[in-house]
Amino acid sequence: MSASRTLLLTIPHRVGALQKALDVLGRNNINIERIESRPSKLDKRIYDFVVDVKDVPEHTLNKCIDVLKETKAAESITFLGVKDEIPWFPGKISDLDKLKQEILEAGADLSSDHPGFNDQEYRNRRKQIAQIGLNYKHGDKIERVKYTKEETMAWGVIFNKLTSMYSKHACKEVNYVMPMLKNNCGYSENHIPQLQDIHEFLQDTTGFRIRPAAGLLTSRDFLNGLAFRVFHSTQYIRHHSQPLYTPEPDVVHELMGHVPLFADPDFAEFSQEIGLASLGASDRDISRLATLYWFTVEFGVCRQDGVRKAYGAGLLSSFGELEHSMSDVPDIKPFEPDKVCEQTYPITSFQPLYFEAESFERAKEQVKNWAAHMDRPFAVRYNPYTNSVEVLNHSYRLIPVARDLCSKMEQLKNSMEKIIKLQESS
Amino acid sequence: MSASRTLLLTIPHRVGALQKALDVLGRNNINIERIESRPSKLDKRIYDFVVDVKDVPEHTLNKCIDVLKETKAAESITFLGVKDEIPWFPGKISDLDKLKQEILEAGADLSSDHPGFNDQEYRNRRKQIAQIGLNYKHGDKIERVKYTKEETMAWGVIFNKLTSMYSKHACKEVNYVMPMLKNNCGYSENHIPQLQDIHEFLQDTTGFRIRPAAGLLTSRDFLNGLAFRVFHSTQYIRHHSQPLYTPEPDVVHELMGHVPLFADPDFAEFSQEIGLASLGASDRDISRLATLYWFTVEFGVCRQDGVRKAYGAGLLSSFGELEHSMSDVPDIKPFEPDKVCEQTYPITSFQPLYFEAESFERAKEQVKNWAAHMDRPFAVRYNPYTNSVEVLNHSYRLIPVARDLCSKMEQLKNSMEKIIKLQESS
Amino acid sequence: MSASRTLLLTIPHRVGALQKALDVLGRNNINIERIESRPSKLDKRIYDFVVDVKDVPEHTLNKCIDVLKETKAAESITFLGVKDEIPWFPGKISDLDKLKQEILEAGADLSSDHPGFNDQEYRNRRKQIAQIGLNYKHGDKIERVKYTKEETMAWGVIFNKLTSMYSKHACKEVNYVMPMLKNNCGYSENHIPQLQDIHEFLQDTTGFRIRPAAGLLTSRDFLNGLAFRVFHSTQYIRHHSQPLYTPEPDVVHELMGHVPLFADPDFAEFSQEIGLASLGASDRDISRLATLYWFTVEFGVCRQDGVRKAYGAGLLSSFGELEHSMSDVPDIKPFEPDKVCEQTYPITSFQPLYFEAESFERAKEQVKNWAAHMDRPFAVRYNPYTNSVEVLNHSYRLIPVARDLCSKMEQLKNSMEKIIKLQESS
Amino acid sequence: MSASRTLLLTIPHRVGALQKALDVLGRNNINIERIESRPSKLDKRIYDFVVDVKDVPEHTLNKCIDVLKETKAAESITFLGVKDEIPWFPGKISDLDKLKQEILEAGADLSSDHPGFNDQEYRNRRKQIAQIGLNYKHGDKIERVKYTKEETMAWGVIFNKLTSMYSKHACKEVNYVMPMLKNNCGYSENHIPQLQDIHEFLQDTTGFRIRPAAGLLTSRDFLNGLAFRVFHSTQYIRHHSQPLYTPEPDVVHELMGHVPLFADPDFAEFSQEIGLASLGASDRDISRLATLYWFTVEFGVCRQDGVRKAYGAGLLSSFGELEHSMSDVPDIKPFEPDKVCEQTYPITSFQPLYFEAESFERAKEQVKNWAAHMDRPFAVRYNPYTNSVEVLNHSYRLIPVARDLCSKMEQLKNSMEKIIKLQESS
Repeated sequence: MSASRTLLLTIPHRVGALQKALDVLGRNNINIERIESRPSKLDKRIYDFVVDVKDVPEHTLNKCIDVLKETKAAESITFLGVKDEIPWFPGKISDLDKLKQEILEAGADLSSDHPGFNDQEYRNRRKQIAQIGLNYKHGDKIERVKYTKEETMAWGVIFNKLTSMYSKHACKEVNYVMPMLKNNCGYSENHIPQLQDIHEFLQDTTGFRIRPAAGLLTSRDFLNGLAFRVFHSTQYIRHHSQPLYTPEPDVVHELMGHVPLFADPDFAEFSQEIGLASLGASDRDISRLATLYWFTVEFGVCRQDGVRKAYGAGLLSSFGELEHSMSDVPDIKPFEPDKVCEQTYPITSFQPLYFEAESFERAKEQVKNWAAHMDRPFAVRYNPYTNSVEVLNHSYRLIPVARDLCSKMEQLKNSMEKIIKLQESS
Repeated sequence: MSASRTLLLTIPHRVGALQKALDVLGRNNINIERIESRPSKLDKRIYDFVVDVKDVPEHTLNKCIDVLKETKAAESITFLGVKDEIPWFPGKISDLDKLKQEILEAGADLSSDHPGFNDQEYRNRRKQIAQIGLNYKHGDKIERVKYTKEETMAWGVIFNKLTSMYSKHACKEVNYVMPMLKNNCGYSENHIPQLQDIHEFLQDTTGFRIRPAAGLLTSRDFLNGLAFRVFHSTQYIRHHSQPLYTPEPDVVHELMGHVPLFADPDFAEFSQEIGLASLGASDRDISRLATLYWFTVEFGVCRQDGVRKAYGAGLLSSFGELEHSMSDVPDIKPFEPDKVCEQTYPITSFQPLYFEAESFERAKEQVKNWAAHMDRPFAVRYNPYTNSVEVLNHSYRLIPVARDLCSKMEQLKNSMEKIIKLQESS
Repeated sequence: MSASRTLLLTIPHRVGALQKALDVLGRNNINIERIESRPSKLDKRIYDFVVDVKDVPEHTLNKCIDVLKETKAAESITFLGVKDEIPWFPGKISDLDKLKQEILEAGADLSSDHPGFNDQEYRNRRKQIAQIGLNYKHGDKIERVKYTKEETMAWGVIFNKLTSMYSKHACKEVNYVMPMLKNNCGYSENHIPQLQDIHEFLQDTTGFRIRPAAGLLTSRDFLNGLAFRVFHSTQYIRHHSQPLYTPEPDVVHELMGHVPLFADPDFAEFSQEIGLASLGASDRDISRLATLYWFTVEFGVCRQDGVRKAYGAGLLSSFGELEHSMSDVPDIKPFEPDKVCEQTYPITSFQPLYFEAESFERAKEQVKNWAAHMDRPFAVRYNPYTNSVEVLNHSYRLIPVARDLCSKMEQLKNSMEKIIKLQESS
Repeated sequence: MSASRTLLLTIPHRVGALQKALDVLGRNNINIERIESRPSKLDKRIYDFVVDVKDVPEHTLNKCIDVLKETKAAESITFLGVKDEIPWFPGKISDLDKLKQEILEAGADLSSDHPGFNDQEYRNRRKQIAQIGLNYKHGDKIERVKYTKEETMAWGVIFNKLTSMYSKHACKEVNYVMPMLKNNCGYSENHIPQLQDIHEFLQDTTGFRIRPAAGLLTSRDFLNGLAFRVFHSTQYIRHHSQPLYTPEPDVVHELMGHVPLFADPDFAEFSQEIGLASLGASDRDISRLATLYWFTVEFGVCRQDGVRKAYGAGLLSSFGELEHSMSDVPDIKPFEPDKVCEQTYPITSFQPLYFEAESFERAKEQVKNWAAHMDRPFAVRYNPYTNSVEVLNHSYRLIPVARDLCSKMEQLKNSMEKIIKLQESS
């Protein structure tokens, strides 16, 4: 199997510098798929080059890295996707198009105890809907699904059941957003909302994006998507025979469980922090982050005005577990990332243990601090203008970060002065 | 004529609060075109509502504003587009779709001394290309133009002439970007680059966007676009009979003059600052900003390593004025926004006076400080995740700005610690 | 008894404004002890006046406040020390001279089970040493005590015993500072260090100051002192008959327990945070802060490299409790200010419960956040140049704070650029 | 002559590390005057040592530096005061005591055309007053001078003359502070204010300190003092025969010209910036800074509400030049540090040219930016708690700076939240 491999080269702004580096690859018969030069957003003295390669034996790549380092053909060499080096990760939002091949074939093949296992029509329907995800490219509009009457009825049953419980058990952010989802995205008993409408609404509120997924992604790929504020969402609905149960995520889980929170600015930042931490993380850290994700985005609870409330999608989309989580039965512990990330959990039954966050803002800071101590040879910074990730691995790369902060601090000061002047004159 | 009018209502998060406000409008027979509720990105205690109205007499609107204020039906009322109030401005990037009607009909009708006045074929061609701009909506891909051999030849002549002068007279940012435009966007003697390709390249480098324009926009609309890092670009080319002259902007001016600079992070920020300052500005301030734009983005020069260099598009796309500007003939003064913005200038001859910036970063700070003292009853802040503008007119709206700064400062600190740890271990 | 009362008046910079305010006081026969005008460090448009009054009945003061408010004679009126208003607090470091009268007479009268109760000579000695504290004024050099041979021997016994345990049980900050205390302040078996020498050493390391105390201060006064980085220290030594035991703080407790930590920058900031939170706090909050102080500065433990270590002065100055605290006997809980501050504790036996901090830096942030939610009608900011406290109770008072941050951020950026330039050239 | 020489050693926190470094000095017979160890305020992993040496030939020192570097006995070695290395500078405020020897003997010997040349009594009087400055040590109270009736009368003449002109020609900061100097420091026609009283007033307003000077200091020493917010002030008064003229600074010049401005927070920061820039600067840069000082602190003018005003001490203490500077006669240019610092000027006549600042805040930023590009192999940061200077020459030294900024930013945010809560509840 030929994994994606990307070479990040930082070439000094000198005549012939890139050629020297490429020669090394050429002499080793490395097949370059694509070279992309981009002005370094961070420092004008250098070029950053992104070189994609394919079908190259590992030892050849390792040899090249050695030569590049020895000959100082490049100032900084980061090879993503080669063993013992940093795992490959998407550097810009359109790189998420490359994740597709990694999707597990869960969209096509169901296990034998699945409610829809013997329903050939249902299985065909899922295959058909999965195709939308397979065809999707960044920037495309998401194809609308014409849901059947049967599908819509299944949705309606769950929609009514869940919304009736939200005012009591869902966190205030969910209750704040829900009316807007009704107004703006067509959330109602009689209509399964369309991903494209939700995508546009989220773009306006937090900049989160929806990508239709053909099926399950690996933890790494899924988390990497969050770094770009991209949520991979299924589009099919559970089997109509059991509207209140589903063994895997479906459109109800995504739309009722995840979407309301992604419209909240603090939660959006929290999710992105987990995503950014996952970029180039070791397998061990990916596993920890997936556990953090499990106990927050999927099964998180928080305390609001002294009462426990649900914000995890797994709770908000399952009235059974929602009630369970609010009862005296489960164990509740404070959210501390370094403990949470090592906690084991069952996946086929209600959770026996939940972690309670103080607030999304605090949880975000906790995850950020936790991530700052991960064993990764660089820090990252997201550029929301270019929707790309800046790899911070040298002191000089921090200068533009510091400049940006000066500029933002100045802006805050100016705004404070402006507002005080307004107050005085009114 | 019925101008766009937008009412920004900040409604406290209380039952019935919106209804109370809408009743006021209803009782006055105000025809509501669209209501958009969005969670306030700034404060969860409140809803921000955007209400678009149309065909309503001014005095009716004024009366409504009075009633809304008296009855405290809304915490904050800002009516854009009504006389004596704040001029209307786009609040989010898709609002730029509304600017179209304001486009002057220059794309269709040429003046009699225009090189293409008597060439009906040329006039039809321009009409046809202008249609692309008229049809365009935010999020669309820009339709590619099949340029004729004649058009491409005209481009080639100018392309060669200009690029031969850049190494000597253009600022280093232009010379840095030009090879990338060749690699990534097909800049070459034999090919007129396509706006969509350039748009994608700019998205990757600074997040700047290209919108095809049917013709000239008003200063206000054009500058408002820059606030969103959107550049309205023409797509047609000058008449082939005079390849080295054009009385109005054409694709050569945009692609050779403007595009290279928009790929520079500091210049992109500089341009956006001018744009942000223009939102809701008085007519007098719009005129000042247009003058600032003229003497920077169009005709700016700067000093680099002790030598004067050009960065203005009007210079970079005209070899005649480029040479003139680098000669001893014109007057050169330091860039000081409060003087620049009051300077008169000719539009049909070479400029007798240029203003020299220290650097784009410094120029950006100068424009920011200048704008901070403009007479506008609010400050603004751009949210690059949602591509929308936040109106800062109350102290509580600054809290999330301060939180964001805490978070960014923490991130810088963490990154510094990470990098030092890396340096020590290597 | 006539308590200190201070009126903080913010007078607009207008002719006759102060006179108008003073007239109100005069008409009510209020006896003004001192008027101090100082340029507002925060805003040049206003004067801040500090007016001290004495021997005025409460109802008269309350009446004045009402009149001042009604007539708008002052923009902001804060009366410290009047019932139902804010408790009086020192506004600048020399105000600490006023705390003296509040000192409990513990320095002179001992309880009957005190080891020195029947030793008249010892009691006289304590009285004599207490006199130094009573006479002390801010800015004075602290009078040196000629300790007797007996006193020095008592010190030597404890000094040897304790230092032998530090490498195992004291936190690393203590072990780092101890050699410097030997070098710079004469810490040794044969010499009781002098407060003035320690004061000078602390001034050089963290800016902490020592003030000789005649005896115990109220919790409020003691904590208020910390706001100015001032530590009130006893100077006498325990009775020689029981060198390893003392019922109250003595010079051993201060010098072995407190001083090493005050030389640590993070701990100094932590202590000052507690102090700043105490300024003008309600009696209830003072009690909470005193409890926080108890479980940190007096009996705190922390985890370092996976091992529990002592940093509380009560532990570092008592080898019995030091061993107890490091054993399996007591209960250990994580340091969470909102829980700690409500915890009860014994004062005559070893503590059954200790709270473990992650680090001083983290503990400082925790206390700061906790204090930010205290019920006090202002925030405070310390000005280390003037050693005074700025009361932040209006938006415009934050402008200089924001300006200062811009300036400091700019400085960090400049320093980063300088250092990178140095690294490159070396 | 044996200049002060100081060796700054940064020793890793390792057993025997200091000994190894000292051995190098010992083997070269270097006579160590004083070793001072202090915990690094910046990084706990290291000790900073300050070693003062005296009477050592230059080549011996150079040899030592080489050996220390080669053997890596110290992580960072900075030798102040040796040729080709960095000029010596005070590291903490008490180091200013060492400047005394450098004082020129102007206090004792007058030139023959001096108004007091033939007045032996006057010359004795000056000698006597100079003695106060010679004896002074940091932390002492400044001895009060009993001015004679004659001296006080001379003061009174000038005091009346000057104050009558201030409302028209002095900047608003002077007019704001002057009433406070009357109230707090005894400024009046009949009384020459005492330096100690002024010192205490300045301590309360900006933290500036007065040090009595025996005479003129070198530019370097004088500017170095400003880094610590210390102003070296003469204490004697000009000869009574010519009250309106003096060829050198005297107590009138200091008290009327300099003191009012040092009570202004922005001006205090501005002065300190010049001082910090002078620490360890090359002779060439000292000369530039002295020129900057001349055209600002001594002869600066600024524009306020559209009118030119004086803030320079040389203007504020000379009614002749004050009038001249406000007339149409002299040339006025905008304050631009890189031009100002190269400007020549006469010292025996009225200035033909003045530079006009926009504001002290802006001037401070300009000087800071100018200083950031000085050719000095480190940045500095002032610690107002310890009144010492931190040398920033390695990336890791910036970590505590960044931490401090995080903390201060958090504090601003908390204060903003607190104040908004107060506004809402009132």
